[in-house]
Formats: sequence, structure tokens, C-alpha cells
Amino acid sequence: MDFTKIITAARGDDPVDLLLVNTKIVNVFSGRVIDGSIAIKDGTIIGFGDYDAARTVDLKGRYVAPGFIDSHVHIESSMTCVAEFARAVAPCGTTTVVADPHEIANVLGAAGIDYMLRSAEGQPMDCLFALPSCVPATDMETAGARLNAGDLAPFFAHPRIVALAEMMNYPGVIFTDADVMAKLALARSHHRTMDGHAPGLSGRELFAYTAAGIASDHECTSAGEALEKLELGMHIMVREGTCARNLEALFPVIDEHTWRRMMWCTDDRHPHDLLAEGHVDAVIRKAVAMGLDPLTAIRMGTINPADYFGIKDAGAIAPGRKANLVIFSDLADIRAEQVFYMGRPVAENGRILPGIERPAPVSVPPSMRLDPRDLDFSIPAKGGRMRVIRAVADQVVTRCEIMDVTEKDGFAVSDTAGDVIKMCVVDRYSGQAQTGKGFVTGLGLKRGAIASSVAHDSHNIIVAGVSDAEMQTAVSAVVDMGGGLAAVGGGRVLADLPLPVAGLMSDQPVEAVRRQMDGMIAAARDLGAGLADPFMTLGFLALPVIPDLKLTDKGLVDVTRFEIVPLFV
Amino acid sequence: MDFTKIITAARGDDPVDLLLVNTKIVNVFSGRVIDGSIAIKDGTIIGFGDYDAARTVDLKGRYVAPGFIDSHVHIESSMTCVAEFARAVAPCGTTTVVADPHEIANVLGAAGIDYMLRSAEGQPMDCLFALPSCVPATDMETAGARLNAGDLAPFFAHPRIVALAEMMNYPGVIFTDADVMAKLALARSHHRTMDGHAPGLSGRELFAYTAAGIASDHECTSAGEALEKLELGMHIMVREGTCARNLEALFPVIDEHTWRRMMWCTDDRHPHDLLAEGHVDAVIRKAVAMGLDPLTAIRMGTINPADYFGIKDAGAIAPGRKANLVIFSDLADIRAEQVFYMGRPVAENGRILPGIERPAPVSVPPSMRLDPRDLDFSIPAKGGRMRVIRAVADQVVTRCEIMDVTEKDGFAVSDTAGDVIKMCVVDRYSGQAQTGKGFVTGLGLKRGAIASSVAHDSHNIIVAGVSDAEMQTAVSAVVDMGGGLAAVGGGRVLADLPLPVAGLMSDQPVEAVRRQMDGMIAAARDLGAGLADPFMTLGFLALPVIPDLKLTDKGLVDVTRFEIVPLFV
Repeated sequence: MDFTKIITAARGDDPVDLLLVNTKIVNVFSGRVIDGSIAIKDGTIIGFGDYDAARTVDLKGRYVAPGFIDSHVHIESSMTCVAEFARAVAPCGTTTVVADPHEIANVLGAAGIDYMLRSAEGQPMDCLFALPSCVPATDMETAGARLNAGDLAPFFAHPRIVALAEMMNYPGVIFTDADVMAKLALARSHHRTMDGHAPGLSGRELFAYTAAGIASDHECTSAGEALEKLELGMHIMVREGTCARNLEALFPVIDEHTWRRMMWCTDDRHPHDLLAEGHVDAVIRKAVAMGLDPLTAIRMGTINPADYFGIKDAGAIAPGRKANLVIFSDLADIRAEQVFYMGRPVAENGRILPGIERPAPVSVPPSMRLDPRDLDFSIPAKGGRMRVIRAVADQVVTRCEIMDVTEKDGFAVSDTAGDVIKMCVVDRYSGQAQTGKGFVTGLGLKRGAIASSVAHDSHNIIVAGVSDAEMQTAVSAVVDMGGGLAAVGGGRVLADLPLPVAGLMSDQPVEAVRRQMDGMIAAARDLGAGLADPFMTLGFLALPVIPDLKLTDKGLVDVTRFEIVPLFV
Repeated sequence: MDFTKIITAARGDDPVDLLLVNTKIVNVFSGRVIDGSIAIKDGTIIGFGDYDAARTVDLKGRYVAPGFIDSHVHIESSMTCVAEFARAVAPCGTTTVVADPHEIANVLGAAGIDYMLRSAEGQPMDCLFALPSCVPATDMETAGARLNAGDLAPFFAHPRIVALAEMMNYPGVIFTDADVMAKLALARSHHRTMDGHAPGLSGRELFAYTAAGIASDHECTSAGEALEKLELGMHIMVREGTCARNLEALFPVIDEHTWRRMMWCTDDRHPHDLLAEGHVDAVIRKAVAMGLDPLTAIRMGTINPADYFGIKDAGAIAPGRKANLVIFSDLADIRAEQVFYMGRPVAENGRILPGIERPAPVSVPPSMRLDPRDLDFSIPAKGGRMRVIRAVADQVVTRCEIMDVTEKDGFAVSDTAGDVIKMCVVDRYSGQAQTGKGFVTGLGLKRGAIASSVAHDSHNIIVAGVSDAEMQTAVSAVVDMGGGLAAVGGGRVLADLPLPVAGLMSDQPVEAVRRQMDGMIAAARDLGAGLADPFMTLGFLALPVIPDLKLTDKGLVDVTRFEIVPLFV
């Protein structure tokens, strides 16, 4: 920002670029709505009232609020790259996100963070980042990268880095793991906040976690949990994602004393929800519909996250802050009719404006280091009973079941009648294509195979299928796309969704991704899958930090004991 | 802070040092009072409830609040050094101050700031600092130092530096003076806040000032002024000093929306008020007596300034924060019965505890570069009419009067009958003893002379008297003390108050300073002075930033025109 230019315009010596007249200005500092005009120069708000202006726009008495801020989001969950994510959420009034590029960091490490930082340049909103604190999540799987404190250190100098991201490794904090402590010290030394992630943590363990300086939590699922954390000094991010939705539960905690330390986040929103519901605006609308004062709802999506992260140039309509503005007509049902980013209209009535150019795509390193021809999914039958993962609809937890082995020619195979389907996880990083093998029940697959390179947290390739050949075809399709989703039936690929960015993100608009995703789900259903979103369920079957039984490329993980266990019992 | 030790204790693996049981804990995050126990280890709050403790203290149901924070104070106004100031305010419940060492910086420059930083070590409270932004205040006087952005830069790395102090040079901001802009950029690059000082600034000039990023103001004198500034994003420090008291005027602005961006400060409190009324506690009591919710009043003196300055280890009773605590019995009349600093009792019932040792004094560079024998106070009469400064009781403004010259032997002399008394300001820095000469009316001196090295903002030596010889004796006394106050009558020193620290601060306890000050005022009254505090009035007669007519070592300053004017008209 050229302060001299801004200040000169503010004192009235130079004409401003744009004057928005006849507006109702939402003042987040006093909680008042003030009739007036907003003067903008060089993308920055410089003052109010009757300035000489190159251009004047009459807003006809409509409301103007600061652009909305998502305090915690994984862009990867939208399955689109930063450019397309920005074009999806800017029309919702989102002008700033604090993104945790945790998924791509697990795949590509520092190169992934660097890719995201470069991708953020020139977009029609501010994409800021928190630095992933827990890469890899565990040692129970082959990861794409390991980021220790030393790897993170150089990033803190980057102006888009505003925090250390959710410290999911709360045992590492509580038991003062050296690398965890080094990461916290690093954030502290840069006067940066440290986000938390501590589902259900309470009492002494929570005291220990907060004593370390962890300053926020977005995992509260009950009012009691949120109040306990808030009273220990944590800022509470109320999450409304695709799966985890906590507003109803946490609503009673929001009052005149606490609102100031609470804010909205979406964490993980899939393409369908972004398009059907919206983004931060959807959370604000829902909160207002539940009875929250609209000014408070707006402040929890603007000045509160700005203050929390020390973002001084956004979150309010005030001199020196970016002219990021949401224009709407009804406080009771806030819908962005027009969105300004840095003084420029970027979206109207839910659509990005045609003049908003896409920056040139940023190249992303490859992340598929395996030859699918080498794969062997066969499982010699070494017993009559085995551990089987039970997938639970709409949940990331699983259960462990002990079931009979179906044997054919000395090998354990899928039993479609009993809904016991072979599942494998293939390491995509080391070049060794190490493969963990097991069985899943609850998917419902009757024929063919489905595969995906979105497999939390390390994002190896996960595949489930009724025949080894079709599983191989599905994995080959994923590898050939440089990552993505594939459904195979009758020996051929029925549907696919390329995710060329680290095997996690598309380079297509979110609408296209949703259409492709609908096609994928239809294909999986056609193969017999009974779940609402079989690929989402599949994507969490490899996550070895959530109980009970998971499969990684290293084998079956009993998460309750945090160890690899044999398939056969 | 040793986080490993703190976290280990928090999770319960090591016994804590101290457990305060049977307490009513003021939770500044939720605005609730919670019954419970507070566990302390290594001076840090680590948790709540039933910890194994080396020592347990039963507080018998009394309230415990976080130690109070003064968001803006000039310690020099207490006329005592840091050690004695700390011993004066800690018993009031103040455990943190953000001090602007502006006065000593005007005398000693970076060496003065360094002296204050070193003096802050080992005191029974946290003395943090904001870096003086406007040294010298003007070029209309010989100053002890000049601090440009480059001089300030190294200090930002010091852990006690939390802000750039009040940017009094608001014209410099509004007209983008290069050195001012460099200072602001410096604070910004260190993620540090910038305090403001903009009495009466409004509209476009205020837009320009806030567009530069100035984030607070403590000079508001009306509710309208405070609301305008708050709505532009400034944090409002409500000042209750010895002279300037703004709580009544600003009280209407404090509500459920605004309280979060408002806080208390004392700015300048003289020894008498510190002893008679108190410190931040006095402001809190007054606000509560006026009807403010006690929890809000406490939060405006604890978590609000902590959040504003990014002080993460104070301002709340929460894990990881210093065990700085105020214990009291009555929310309606909050009086510190016991004060803990870092888990240790430091004061009880208004008195510092005997066991609280004074750190070894820090040496301070000399600041008296003149030989009083060189001085010449004679004024050859070059006209019959002259400009005379009219001192106004209890005000820092003056008026300019045109009066007849009283002539004797070709020289202009004092006219005690007409209350027109000679006044001089002697440069104490350059070694040249440059002397500005003039006359003052309103002081009331009938005989003798009074002199002081406290003369805002450059703190040259100011002296008023009825004879040149007694003026010389008074200045000699000040110089011999290495700075201070002196009253001379009948040719000899009647009373003095040594201020050996930069000519601004005593090394004696505040009680002793008050007794000495009372003696000084009595002596001045005995000489005929009629004002409540003639030395305070005298101390502002050299301040060339406050209208109308002032005297510096360079001569009479017409502040309305901002230029040196001749004595004779």
C-alpha cells in the first residue's frame, strides 16, 4: 500500500477513484448502521462523505458490510485450485480466507505451500495462509513430506502467512514433543497466533494445551466444550462445514460478553455445498435466522477474525483498510448482491463478473511416483477369520469387525453377497508402491472398483473393488490423470474426475467439479455402492488418527492402540 | 517462560508451587465470576481445580481479578524512577504498564530509553514500553536529543517494546513527513501497534491520520469525539490523569458493542494523586460508581489493553499467563487487598510488602551541560511595550498579553506590584547555556525565585524570579542537584527537590517526593505564588506546542503562528 497516496487522498488533496453514495454502512466497531458515502482510492477506503471522485456510484440505500473472512478453511476440500475456489466464494461475499494448505502440504511439503502461495497472487480475494503444523499426521503411513520447524521457518516472513495452523498433534503439545515446541516457539517469535484443534479436550489436558499458547479451536461440538475453551482464553471458531456443523450446538455460547472472541469458519466445504448454500454468508444467514443480531453475525465474520489474526487492512469499513465490500438489501437475509475486492466489483448476484481475469496457472510438481503395472493386490489366505473395516455412513470413524475369510485358490477375496470388499492403499510417494491390503464392509460395492488419490491425511491411492484386475484398472486411471477419482466396471473406466493438482484439486471451475463428482457418485451407485458419497467415505478409510480400524499403505491400523495389526486373527 | 515446565505442571505430572483455593475468579473472556481454585507454577497460571501443591492459600471466597494494566502512562509524571513508581502502583493492583518514556527520551535520547528498559528489570510489576515517536516535539527549542526512525529501529527487537508511542505529530502524519512515515513503517514491519494522540482531530484530517494505521487515541474529551474515532477503528483509551480527566465525558460511549475497543489509561498522574486516589484501580472504582458493570470495568483494565498491544502473557486468569492477580472483597468498590505479581504476593492493603527487594539502581547519564556562573538574565529595555505570558490556573494553555515595560537602569525588570515577573529558559544541553528571556503574569511571585528542570517537552531549566541574582541562585541549585526543583528567597535556597534522574525523576519513594513537593509548594506560596501548584504551571510555560505564548531557550514562541517573536512590540 502506498500510504502517501492514500493519506493525500484522505485529506482531500487528490480526487478519489470511487465514491459509493447513498449507502447504509455497517460499522463493526460501534455496531451501528450509518447512512453515508464511502470514498475509495487505490483499492483502499480512505474516508467518508463528500469527496471529489472520478466515479460515483449510487447504491440506492443498500447496506454495505466489510467483505467476509473465513477464519479456517482447507481449500483442497473444495476440490478446486485457489483460482477456482476464489471464483466460487467471492460471489458469496468472501474477500479473505485464512487457508490451511494442510492437504497439499502432506503431498508435496514445502513445495505444496509454495504452490498455494504463488497461486494466491492476483486472485479476486485475499487468500492468506496458516502454516500446516502437523505434516505428516502420523508415522503409520508413507507420507509425501515431513515439515519440521526448520522447514516452516522461512515461510513466516511471507506476508500471506498469518498463523501457525491447527495444532492437531495435541498429545505432542501436552507431552512437549521437541519439534512441536519448536514450531510453537517459531510462531511466537514472529508474533503470530497459533490455531488449535482439540476435539473434546478438557480439564488438565486442555490447560496444558492452552498454557502452550494455542489460541483458538474450531472443533467444539457442544456449548459446554466451547465455553470451557473460551474461558481458558481460546478464540472459538464456529464451524459450518459440509460434514461437521456446529452452529446449533454452539449458538447458546454467543452473548454480549463472548461474541468478541468467536468467529465463523467453514473448515471443509465440498463443491455441492459451496454452490447450493454458499460460504461464510451461509453461516451468517443461518445465525441470523436463528436469532443472532445481524451486526454481531457480521462482526463474527469480519472484524473478529481480522483482529484475531492481526489482519490490519481488512475486516472493517475504515480508512486504510482494503475496500472489500459486500452490498446487500436485507439485514435479516444477507445475500451479496454485489461484491467489491480492493475497490473493484468482482461479483454480482452470485456470479463472478466476466471481466475478472484468471491469473496464469502456477505449475505444480508431480506427485505420482509409482508404476501401476507393478501392483499386486492379491492376499494369500493365512487364516479363516480376519479384521474388517466397517465404514459408517456420513462418519469418519469406523468400527473393527471380525469376519470369516472368503477364500478362492488360496487367496482371500471379496464376498459381494456379504458386502466384504477388498480394499488396498498404495503408497504414491516412495516409488516402491508399498501396498496395504484389507477388506471393508458397508461400502456396498457389487461389481467393479473405485479408486481415489484423496485419502486423508497422506493422500496415497485408496482403491476398493471386487476383482484385482478392476482395482488395477482403477488405480491406473488415477495415476494416468496425475491423481483423481475413478470408477471401473466391466473392466473399463466408467467415470473419472481428474485432480491434477497434487491429486487433490481440479483446475476446473467448482460447477464443473460438482458435475463430474455427481457423475462419479452415479457410477459408484451403479456399481452397487449404497452410501451418500462413497468417495468421501473412502477418503477417510485411510486416516489413521480417527478410530477404530483404518488401512494405510503400511497395513491395517488399530487406531485405539495406535499400532499396525495383522489382517488375519 | 519455560513452557515445558509449565505444561508438565498443567497436565498434573509435577506439583504446583501455589494453589489459591476458595476464590471467586473473574473470567474476562466470558464475563462470569467462577468459584474455584487457581494453580500456579513458576509464576504462571497453569490451571484450575485440585492440583497437588507445595503451598495452599485459602482466599476465603474473595474475588481474584487479573492484575490491572495501564495502557498509556508517562512514569516521569510521577516524579519517581521506575523502581519507586512500581512500588507506588503495584499496591493499587497494577501489574503491567505500557509506559511512554517520552520525557526522558527528550532529555537523553536513546540512552534515556535504554535507562528505562534496564530500570524495568526485576521490578514487582511488568513495565513495558512504547517507543517515543516525537523527539523532539518541535524545533522551537534546544532539545536533549533527536530520535529518528533509524534510532528507534534497534529497540523494536526488545521484548519490553510493544508499540510505537503516541504520534503527537499528527500534522506530520497528515502531510506524510518522511521521518514520520518511516517510523510508522517500522512499527508496521514489526507487527507492532501505533498509538495516537490527536486532540480534537476530526473529519478528513482524522481519516488521513487513521488511514496511516494509527490505532488508538487517549485525547478524547467528548463522547462525540470518542465515537467518531472509535467508528474509524481507533481503540479509545479513556484517560484519568491528574489534570486531564475524561471518564465522565466518555462514559456514554461505553456499551456492549464498544467496550471491547476501549481501555483505561492514566497518562500523567502526579505523586499526590497516586497516593490519595490510586492508579488504574481508581479509574475502575470511579467507572463502577458511575454505573458501569464491574466486569466490564475490569476488562477495560486487563484483557482489552493486553489484546490491543498483543501482550499474550497477561490480562487474564488463564493457563500460560503470568499469575498477576488482584484480590478484593467487593465488586462494587474494588480495592486491592492483596496483589500477586508472577505468583508472588507483592503488596497488601495498599502497601508494598517488606520482602520486596529493590533492584540495584541503574546508572543514568548526566544531563546538565551548563555552568550557572555563565548565565546572564538581564534584559536591555528595547521598547515600552512587551509581550507577556499569562499563566492560566490549572491549564497548560496560556494567553499573550501586551503590557507596559518596567524599566530600571535601562533594563526591563520584574514588577511585583503588577505581577509581571521575569522568566527565563536556559538550554541545558548544548553547553552554550542559550537563554530565552521574557515575563510572566499570573504566577503571583512577590519575592525570590523558583526554578525547575521539568519544563515540557525538552526540559530545559525554567526559572522565574524578581531578581536576577536569586534567579541565578535558583538555577545553580537545580544544576548542583543534577536537576530538580528549587525555591530561593532572601538570597538562599528555601526548599529543593532533587531529581537526579535526567532532571525529571527522584530516586526516592513517591511518598517522600510528595512531602518534598508539598514543601516546595509551601515555599513558593511563601514567596507569593498564588497557584495551586506553581511548579506544574511553570513546567508547561516552555511547551511550544500548546497555545498561545510560550518561552523556550530560543525566545518567545507565538504558538498560534508557530514562530519565534520578539519580546518588545
